[in-house]
Amino acid sequence: MNKPPLIVIGGSSERSQETMGAFQEFPQVEACRLYTKFSARPSSIETIPSIIEKAVRSSIYGRPGPCYVDIPADFVNLQVNVNSVKYVECCMPPPVSMAETSAVYMAASVIRNAKRPLLIIGKGAAYAHAEEALRKLVEQCKLPFLPTPMGKGVIPDNHQYCVSAARSRALQFADVIVLFGARLNWILHFGLPPRYQPDVKFIQVDICAEELGNNVKPAVTLLGDTNAVTKQLLEQFNKTPWQYPPESSWWQTLREKMKSNEAASKELASQKSLPMNYYTVFYHVQEQLPRDCFVVSEGANTMDIGRTVIQNYLPRHRLDAGTFGTMGIGLGFAIAAAIVAKDRNPGQRVICVEGDSAFGFSGMEVETICRYNLPIVLLVVNNNGIYQGFDADSWKEMLKFGDATAVAPPVCLLPNSHYEQVMTAFGGKGYFVQTPEELQKSLKQSLADTTKPSLLNIMIEPQATRKAQDFHWLTRSNM
Amino acid sequence: MNKPPLIVIGGSSERSQETMGAFQEFPQVEACRLYTKFSARPSSIETIPSIIEKAVRSSIYGRPGPCYVDIPADFVNLQVNVNSVKYVECCMPPPVSMAETSAVYMAASVIRNAKRPLLIIGKGAAYAHAEEALRKLVEQCKLPFLPTPMGKGVIPDNHQYCVSAARSRALQFADVIVLFGARLNWILHFGLPPRYQPDVKFIQVDICAEELGNNVKPAVTLLGDTNAVTKQLLEQFNKTPWQYPPESSWWQTLREKMKSNEAASKELASQKSLPMNYYTVFYHVQEQLPRDCFVVSEGANTMDIGRTVIQNYLPRHRLDAGTFGTMGIGLGFAIAAAIVAKDRNPGQRVICVEGDSAFGFSGMEVETICRYNLPIVLLVVNNNGIYQGFDADSWKEMLKFGDATAVAPPVCLLPNSHYEQVMTAFGGKGYFVQTPEELQKSLKQSLADTTKPSLLNIMIEPQATRKAQDFHWLTRSNM
Amino acid sequence: MNKPPLIVIGGSSERSQETMGAFQEFPQVEACRLYTKFSARPSSIETIPSIIEKAVRSSIYGRPGPCYVDIPADFVNLQVNVNSVKYVECCMPPPVSMAETSAVYMAASVIRNAKRPLLIIGKGAAYAHAEEALRKLVEQCKLPFLPTPMGKGVIPDNHQYCVSAARSRALQFADVIVLFGARLNWILHFGLPPRYQPDVKFIQVDICAEELGNNVKPAVTLLGDTNAVTKQLLEQFNKTPWQYPPESSWWQTLREKMKSNEAASKELASQKSLPMNYYTVFYHVQEQLPRDCFVVSEGANTMDIGRTVIQNYLPRHRLDAGTFGTMGIGLGFAIAAAIVAKDRNPGQRVICVEGDSAFGFSGMEVETICRYNLPIVLLVVNNNGIYQGFDADSWKEMLKFGDATAVAPPVCLLPNSHYEQVMTAFGGKGYFVQTPEELQKSLKQSLADTTKPSLLNIMIEPQATRKAQDFHWLTRSNM
Amino acid sequence: MNKPPLIVIGGSSERSQETMGAFQEFPQVEACRLYTKFSARPSSIETIPSIIEKAVRSSIYGRPGPCYVDIPADFVNLQVNVNSVKYVECCMPPPVSMAETSAVYMAASVIRNAKRPLLIIGKGAAYAHAEEALRKLVEQCKLPFLPTPMGKGVIPDNHQYCVSAARSRALQFADVIVLFGARLNWILHFGLPPRYQPDVKFIQVDICAEELGNNVKPAVTLLGDTNAVTKQLLEQFNKTPWQYPPESSWWQTLREKMKSNEAASKELASQKSLPMNYYTVFYHVQEQLPRDCFVVSEGANTMDIGRTVIQNYLPRHRLDAGTFGTMGIGLGFAIAAAIVAKDRNPGQRVICVEGDSAFGFSGMEVETICRYNLPIVLLVVNNNGIYQGFDADSWKEMLKFGDATAVAPPVCLLPNSHYEQVMTAFGGKGYFVQTPEELQKSLKQSLADTTKPSLLNIMIEPQATRKAQDFHWLTRSNM
Repeated sequence: MNKPPLIVIGGSSERSQETMGAFQEFPQVEACRLYTKFSARPSSIETIPSIIEKAVRSSIYGRPGPCYVDIPADFVNLQVNVNSVKYVECCMPPPVSMAETSAVYMAASVIRNAKRPLLIIGKGAAYAHAEEALRKLVEQCKLPFLPTPMGKGVIPDNHQYCVSAARSRALQFADVIVLFGARLNWILHFGLPPRYQPDVKFIQVDICAEELGNNVKPAVTLLGDTNAVTKQLLEQFNKTPWQYPPESSWWQTLREKMKSNEAASKELASQKSLPMNYYTVFYHVQEQLPRDCFVVSEGANTMDIGRTVIQNYLPRHRLDAGTFGTMGIGLGFAIAAAIVAKDRNPGQRVICVEGDSAFGFSGMEVETICRYNLPIVLLVVNNNGIYQGFDADSWKEMLKFGDATAVAPPVCLLPNSHYEQVMTAFGGKGYFVQTPEELQKSLKQSLADTTKPSLLNIMIEPQATRKAQDFHWLTRSNM
Repeated sequence: MNKPPLIVIGGSSERSQETMGAFQEFPQVEACRLYTKFSARPSSIETIPSIIEKAVRSSIYGRPGPCYVDIPADFVNLQVNVNSVKYVECCMPPPVSMAETSAVYMAASVIRNAKRPLLIIGKGAAYAHAEEALRKLVEQCKLPFLPTPMGKGVIPDNHQYCVSAARSRALQFADVIVLFGARLNWILHFGLPPRYQPDVKFIQVDICAEELGNNVKPAVTLLGDTNAVTKQLLEQFNKTPWQYPPESSWWQTLREKMKSNEAASKELASQKSLPMNYYTVFYHVQEQLPRDCFVVSEGANTMDIGRTVIQNYLPRHRLDAGTFGTMGIGLGFAIAAAIVAKDRNPGQRVICVEGDSAFGFSGMEVETICRYNLPIVLLVVNNNGIYQGFDADSWKEMLKFGDATAVAPPVCLLPNSHYEQVMTAFGGKGYFVQTPEELQKSLKQSLADTTKPSLLNIMIEPQATRKAQDFHWLTRSNM
Repeated sequence: MNKPPLIVIGGSSERSQETMGAFQEFPQVEACRLYTKFSARPSSIETIPSIIEKAVRSSIYGRPGPCYVDIPADFVNLQVNVNSVKYVECCMPPPVSMAETSAVYMAASVIRNAKRPLLIIGKGAAYAHAEEALRKLVEQCKLPFLPTPMGKGVIPDNHQYCVSAARSRALQFADVIVLFGARLNWILHFGLPPRYQPDVKFIQVDICAEELGNNVKPAVTLLGDTNAVTKQLLEQFNKTPWQYPPESSWWQTLREKMKSNEAASKELASQKSLPMNYYTVFYHVQEQLPRDCFVVSEGANTMDIGRTVIQNYLPRHRLDAGTFGTMGIGLGFAIAAAIVAKDRNPGQRVICVEGDSAFGFSGMEVETICRYNLPIVLLVVNNNGIYQGFDADSWKEMLKFGDATAVAPPVCLLPNSHYEQVMTAFGGKGYFVQTPEELQKSLKQSLADTTKPSLLNIMIEPQATRKAQDFHWLTRSNM
Repeated sequence: MNKPPLIVIGGSSERSQETMGAFQEFPQVEACRLYTKFSARPSSIETIPSIIEKAVRSSIYGRPGPCYVDIPADFVNLQVNVNSVKYVECCMPPPVSMAETSAVYMAASVIRNAKRPLLIIGKGAAYAHAEEALRKLVEQCKLPFLPTPMGKGVIPDNHQYCVSAARSRALQFADVIVLFGARLNWILHFGLPPRYQPDVKFIQVDICAEELGNNVKPAVTLLGDTNAVTKQLLEQFNKTPWQYPPESSWWQTLREKMKSNEAASKELASQKSLPMNYYTVFYHVQEQLPRDCFVVSEGANTMDIGRTVIQNYLPRHRLDAGTFGTMGIGLGFAIAAAIVAKDRNPGQRVICVEGDSAFGFSGMEVETICRYNLPIVLLVVNNNGIYQGFDADSWKEMLKFGDATAVAPPVCLLPNSHYEQVMTAFGGKGYFVQTPEELQKSLKQSLADTTKPSLLNIMIEPQATRKAQDFHWLTRSNM
């Protein structure tokens, strides 16, 4: 199973009323053009199957992406002779392509000669189901690797060669970087200094030819299915075995940096002051999460810090706001994941970690969660605001001097909102969580109950933020 | 004050990172093209004022509509010499144009000769502030009129010449119809039989030339500002006074139909069975609403039936899902109205009448309402579903036989959801309302409290619907 | 007759082959969106009449513009029951609107108080058939006026109050400017200094509300049909007669500047050196042109200089490259004009004045001209290049030193091309013209022959250019 | 050298004048979106190199296509510090990918088991430089092949296994068809009955994943570079040698059909009646054409029939109107080819075979041809019209009865136009050709002269058409 097709079926107004001011008349196919790989309206009911087939196929062949099919209102009640319908079979699984043999050879040679190698595992590797091949490559060659947000879990986050805890350091000093289905976009700082060495050699493995060479001039490009290409690389290292020395100074540097970063996180996590900080919350969450759960997340600090603490052990089990950083997708993702889990693996849990601001985009979807009785565990990490929140005490203090809206910064939300009641309103369980003990207890209860959704409204210090960074996540690249 | 400008200011990614895969990189100006009258990005910080002026002006000159201005991320921190900025003054109020004198004369003549005249007052009349002129015209000539959903209140709904209660009849048998800023789109059934006489004469008053002649061949077109043109018509009837005989058989027909319709509504409203039906709810709401309140509404039956019972007495005080029937706009409209009220007329109330399904689109905005402490009164008319809901007892009955999701029709929502708790979660007042008495009491309390928002979750009979109609609202026109 | 509708009917591929890779498959309706006021495909053969009606109406109602109607290939051979077709009548002539009375009053007052008034007559005045009203206004108030390129002829160019010969001066020093259907775009230098006084008062008369206020803050805006509004202004000056003193220093300034400019042109025109210059050519052309001919023109210097010398005496008889400066439209315009002339006024001639570079865009249309035997007189003013040409002697000189393509500047065309043979190839008459005498003689013959098209290939000095200007036509406005 | 990049550099108006009505102001980047793989404007002069690099790369990586880069007018004169410019190196040649080994194996097996195999060689094979590999495959396995219009010459048209002369038969009865870079669009009749067997097995070799499975469900898909995949197939047939029996009944059927078709063509070609027919013309042309010349062609019958007679012996040496059937591209293609030839292989000739109607689209480009003195040989095959022309005698006969335009069918052009004079007008050589002898002689002279362009205006019978076909080229597929 590759990435499942993403087809949006939309309804437009009756064709005979077009240009007349029909109900919700709009050129929807045209409006979807910029957002889709394929956008079309069947010219008749008879052609619906072949248009759907093409939409499904376009969505999963090549680089995956969404497609739109428009069904005008009058199709819904139209009758056709069943014999006139052109039935078509579902398309075959996506075709697989491999890289040119000489390029694979060259890539292996560049890796062998690397002083400070690094593998980056992107969501393209997850879509390509490259987990087994990549794990073999990493373990056989003893190479450090780093997942991108949606590449987490392709190899488990707690793998001994995972250097996530030294992410900035690894990127900044690597001399050879192999990208497996990972784009050099803002998430990877465009592959440019100062986040990278000016002369770093990139080896790009990608399914999309047009992606190769974006922003940097790569040393080697390997066009093809990430899984197939990884196997081609493995073959090279099988023919002429090689491994990167585990006692190299690069590994030492990385291990030291990881150690100090992890210590700093643990230090923050163990702070006893209340309200809690992000690290305290996520460490307690991580302790209890089932190994095989889906983790959905959105928000700013909540998503970014949560990603560093909460671990994924399985590929395609992390659903993030993604390249676009779109807020509001969390609950929809969680519902989709829960329905998949219900069918494929009853008992498998879905954990949805939301910032309070992110939750506000689609919080009403808890009604859907409750209606379908999906036992999702929703965590709202609540700092009363966007990026940073606002302290209720200061707020009250200020209110004495006048209008609340005048004094609260625009990024503040209502302090101490009881998001858990949005869940209880629809019959799920809600917890208002203020201490580590309450967090441990309520999470335990929520995970134990496979019959009902629950929402933990976890209050944290409004001024809480991440630990000091060498670079800000979105640092301008001084270009 | 005409229709206020509607400008969306959007943020795009840093210009220097364009085409590189920047954070949320997208061609936003282009993506907004289909939705706006004007969509542009200032070429430099210096030109922001003139672009904003043009956006504001384009939004309110001619037929009003939204505009988009794109501000790239790097503008936010860029420094410019203040002297290099091209400051521009705000534009003048929209220019006013009038209809050709001969066309006005012809229109007056057609009206004078009408056997079964009807005026239709659209939102264009409201935007043009034509209320005084239209009221004079109606009263002086004793002409029956009908408002469109957003034209309600231009003349009060309880005006003796308002024939809303005989809407279908009035449309179907009129021989001359004057449209004041009202389009012949789906809301007015395209102006075509069987909803209209085949030989009905339309007189169109509109600010937009391209609107004239849509779907019908009008008898007279009056291009210009609706207020100015109405005054021109009045002048004709001042010069040669005329009035439509109040005892004509047309007026008798309309009055009889209104009477029987109102009686039917009252009959429904007075039903004592529980859960309540729509009419019972709206009659009790109507009784208590302040004359000058804003009424915001969205939903299917809730909006359609509510519109027939809840009256507007002031122009531009009804905010509806509009021509596009867009769900999810209710709470945003209510917030905007409440902020306007706060500034212009403290004490003026905003009532937001939501179907339960419509509320689900943007219900989380109650957080915003509570944060700004806007004393909006939210009514969720809750039939447990879309168009029709699902009876909790039947549901439970069915649950015995298996999975809930398998038996509930797709248009059903979770029965007996406690939407009022979505309000209490954020500190507002919530009421779970099941009887007329509870409705009266909780509405009274809500209206009395000008310090806090409240939400009444009003349970109605899941199978409740409107009374029998001659035509379905969206009836196909047999075209 | 207002501006005739401009509808493009396009053919797209068969609907049943859409998305399959049909012959010339493309989303044409969508592709035309940016270029049209209305772009649509009828949903069935039955709706073709109403879509065409809407396209025609949209094209001529409000500000005129092109529309696109898409007819899929399968419509061409499809059979329908003639009774199922929704026939619709042609729309009524465009509705006429007038300006608000108070604004007209204010405009008249501003004009009365002007020290240095100027009227600018744009193509909107021509489309509105405002010629009679404008002529009365100009003559009654003795106001100086200036036509835009396509506004030429609304009042004859040789009218005593036309100040075209002092264009830059008139724009630069006027204190009140009334724009009749003329936009403040690049053609009028955006209405900004240094081409205008910083405090010049603009009065804008326009059919399009969104045009009012573009680039400047106008003193008065008069929204409405230009003809109707001009009559409203006239009424003001009839009620309280007023005229601008013909002996004012402003009139003296303008007259002196015109005199000196005309003298300079005449001086250039009378130069005897060969090859001829632009002025010599156009003065001889102007001498012979019939008063009622259509003048079509395109090119850079050819169009710009030609416009100053060749006079129009009738409105809507000049067809220019227009606001977009689109090259290649000349021959198409000439063909259209000739067909209109043939029907309405046999004997009326069409003169098409082309730069050699402009002619190259659509010169093959002489085949069409010859096929339909349209007696168009084509003048190709041939300077061997774009903006400036290249001297054949220098060319030959340079050729001695190597490759021609290496030395000829990119803006040069082939020297001494015999464009007249492109006409004789298809049976028309061709003249190679090198002297004033040849020009006089061949033009005389061409105009005398109403049975055949002819082409005069008029050789001019490759370095010829316009006389010195205060400002370059496209001068940046130092904004 | 793969397919060279196709980048259009366009100029837009000055950025500071955007939204003001600048000269030729238009959203060009947006307008090019539907037509390009990449459309962008550099955000500053400094980023021009990286945008150009991306445009070039996008144009040639993956499936090739055009890109647009917009340079605003103000960039042209803007000065920048040369150090601030981000120089970037040109991209590497397109990455090459191969098909999955198992799919290649399966494809080979399907081919081995074919009863009536057919290879189709598309332009994708030409772009991929697959000529050597394909020739080996064809010769080693003795498989019949068919080129698409732009795939002609990948293997020489006169190759013994080329079955172009039995095209319809080959398509209709093949049981296994291998497509090498050829799409199943209208040119290949969508791969559907009645032009194909309902159960034909398609093996698709394509660089574009989304192309695989279009319109048919393929038996095997081979995603990758056509050259690399062909080599993979060859490897299979090297490992286990196999060849298709040359004496099979399939080969016999094809050979017989070819023989009879060729005989029919020769019969037509040898007709002595005047005016000539298409076959006579093309047979004489084919006799003299140099083996290595570029053949450019456009038109309807001219292109379609010419393609069957005029042979290509080298890949990428035929330039056709292509998938879109765009008329007007012929002379531009010829100019480009001639410039390439001039640099790479002086003496190599370019022959441009134009229908008279097609020539009319861009015939004025002969000026460019003459200016650069490119020794192109232009053949205008002149039937006085579109698809079919009009006989000058009948014309004259009809003229007696009235207006020419009334009697000539709309598809007729001016009879006996002297297109050759369009060439002589600019100094090239022109020939009016009416007999085979004149054709032979003038073509001989034209080919002998490498210093000048020439144009042969070849008169053919206006009613001439192709020989009877089993199917019309554009036959509807009864879908």
